[in-house]
Amino acid sequence: MPELIVELGARSYPIVVGSGLLAGEPRLLELARARQVAIVTNETVGPLFASRLARSLRPVAAQLLTVSLPDGEAHKDWPTLNRVFDALLGARFDRKALIVALGGGVVGDMAGFAAAVYQRGIDFVQLPTTLLAMVDSSVGGKTGVNHPLGKNMVGAFHQPRLVLADVDTLSTLPARELSAGLAEVIKHGAIADRAYFDAVAAAMARLRAGDAAELTAAIVRSCEIKAEVVARDERESGLRAILNFGHTFGHAIEAGMGYGQWLHGEAVGAGMVMAAELSARLGHMQRSEFERLRAVVAAAGLPVEGPDWPAGRYLELMSTDKKAERGTPRFVLLQGLGRALLSRVPEDALIATLEACAAGALGAAGAPVR
Amino acid sequence: MPELIVELGARSYPIVVGSGLLAGEPRLLELARARQVAIVTNETVGPLFASRLARSLRPVAAQLLTVSLPDGEAHKDWPTLNRVFDALLGARFDRKALIVALGGGVVGDMAGFAAAVYQRGIDFVQLPTTLLAMVDSSVGGKTGVNHPLGKNMVGAFHQPRLVLADVDTLSTLPARELSAGLAEVIKHGAIADRAYFDAVAAAMARLRAGDAAELTAAIVRSCEIKAEVVARDERESGLRAILNFGHTFGHAIEAGMGYGQWLHGEAVGAGMVMAAELSARLGHMQRSEFERLRAVVAAAGLPVEGPDWPAGRYLELMSTDKKAERGTPRFVLLQGLGRALLSRVPEDALIATLEACAAGALGAAGAPVR
Repeated sequence: MPELIVELGARSYPIVVGSGLLAGEPRLLELARARQVAIVTNETVGPLFASRLARSLRPVAAQLLTVSLPDGEAHKDWPTLNRVFDALLGARFDRKALIVALGGGVVGDMAGFAAAVYQRGIDFVQLPTTLLAMVDSSVGGKTGVNHPLGKNMVGAFHQPRLVLADVDTLSTLPARELSAGLAEVIKHGAIADRAYFDAVAAAMARLRAGDAAELTAAIVRSCEIKAEVVARDERESGLRAILNFGHTFGHAIEAGMGYGQWLHGEAVGAGMVMAAELSARLGHMQRSEFERLRAVVAAAGLPVEGPDWPAGRYLELMSTDKKAERGTPRFVLLQGLGRALLSRVPEDALIATLEACAAGALGAAGAPVR
Repeated sequence: MPELIVELGARSYPIVVGSGLLAGEPRLLELARARQVAIVTNETVGPLFASRLARSLRPVAAQLLTVSLPDGEAHKDWPTLNRVFDALLGARFDRKALIVALGGGVVGDMAGFAAAVYQRGIDFVQLPTTLLAMVDSSVGGKTGVNHPLGKNMVGAFHQPRLVLADVDTLSTLPARELSAGLAEVIKHGAIADRAYFDAVAAAMARLRAGDAAELTAAIVRSCEIKAEVVARDERESGLRAILNFGHTFGHAIEAGMGYGQWLHGEAVGAGMVMAAELSARLGHMQRSEFERLRAVVAAAGLPVEGPDWPAGRYLELMSTDKKAERGTPRFVLLQGLGRALLSRVPEDALIATLEACAAGALGAAGAPVR
């Protein structure tokens, strides 16, 4: 089974990618042995996979419970997180308990944050069930919840002990969510590996059709790229910021639309096109490469334009993003496809980009343009 | 000015003890320089000291705000913590912002936890204004809030960058709170340093009268003892548990009475007597040494008996304490004064201890017996 190690010293952990992992992967069983185990999932994913996972854990765990949260980014908040604490405390789970996160990015972020702060920190394992979660949140240890004034404003860095990316779970994933995951796959190629970018572009139809071998290969390579960046900058003090390519624009779109209207990956899709446009406008990237990125984003089934807002609205939304430092955001730009660059940008170029990339004649405000 | 270093590798930090620190200690000014700074305090301490502190910080900080929380353990909860996030996000504080905790243990725990999770972690400085906070929560990096099902159930280990223990602030501290702080001072002697225990006993009247030199000496030595234990076990996997001497009983008392009825130090005072009784009963400690501990606790103005509850009530309360591992608590016992021992204990000895130490004929239930 393909696997890789995220190298973080004492906090290093393996990511295993493949089929049938939910039914009893040996390392998971070893971690769960004789412990109190809580499967944290949501009302959509739970009915599909939780019983299969519970069947494999029940014989080894000292105690097993399942906590099902409401589905969606709108519930990524403290009151929902508190349900996990209620359940764990109600069952008298101690500091040696293990949380198993079964679901997409929201479940992973919340279950991971619950593990980060329950009794000041317990172990957790991630079983991502969306492509986005497999290639993005499974590496890096970012956990957290949203606050009414901003996304992921309350959280922690807390590394899992193990990640199992079971590609079987992708067979039930809606096409729209698969596309959203492909946004991060495209991103990894764009910021770090031109050959991978080309390979993803060539395999796009098979990836969208759910081809297990193509998906496995993409998940492994994306996790490798992200793991390498994270290993060099665990706490996001510098290099790691390149993983935010497309995200400054993307977060503005998500926040402005209201969380959950656009999928995160959709916002990142449009955001990458905007960041590439800005890169081209500033002379860091050829127009032809910008066009190619735009075409690959479109081929993934993702929007290539932001909502039809005036530039001022975008600027206001971006200034509250947490990557901003005192209101002056730094942008991740491309220095050609396959290489990222971190820079502050002149406001006039930014405004011109926003005016060029917000859906105007091309699409109605509010509906992602594909 | 007396100071010590808490040795935690990259997370090491100094504790400075003395007078006049609020009015502009150089290291604090250096840390605050050109940063967004939030003073987090409460409605009791704020009016006494916040303006003095703000006056010293305003000339150097890029931006300064004060967040005042309601006073008391009853408000050590998520909704109150959220006021800090509201204020920081409202003022667009970024990841380089600094939180300055000005207050007792509750303020320190909450402000520290806010710093631990705001945008996944920012720096903080502690300015403890109670003796308890100076000798206890200023070392160890424990932060958190309470949950309806248990105290400090949600939190993080997050080390401050600097601690300033300004003994001037103790001059306004109520006698009852000074006594509560002395509980931890006595504890440090009892678990680790017989000579210090004796010195504290000899200085008790001067300590209770607020003698600045005696208080400074005690704060330094207590912090040294705690720092040494914490340096050897930052995440509380073993040795650090000895700092919980008196706390298993104490937490049961606090939880059972409802938070805030007994001060933490009062509960620890009675809890230490109970733990010493248990130690004597199990043959680890002479009766005469138990009597001496009991006398010193009483001399500090602290209760020496728990509330008048049946043993079963104590057992139930202790089994939900987070130091319990699957319902079987380990106890910190004394192997004579000055040396601690961690052990599980026979239930009959525990029950006999509870029956001997709960206020019976000696005091009305609910009122700490001094």
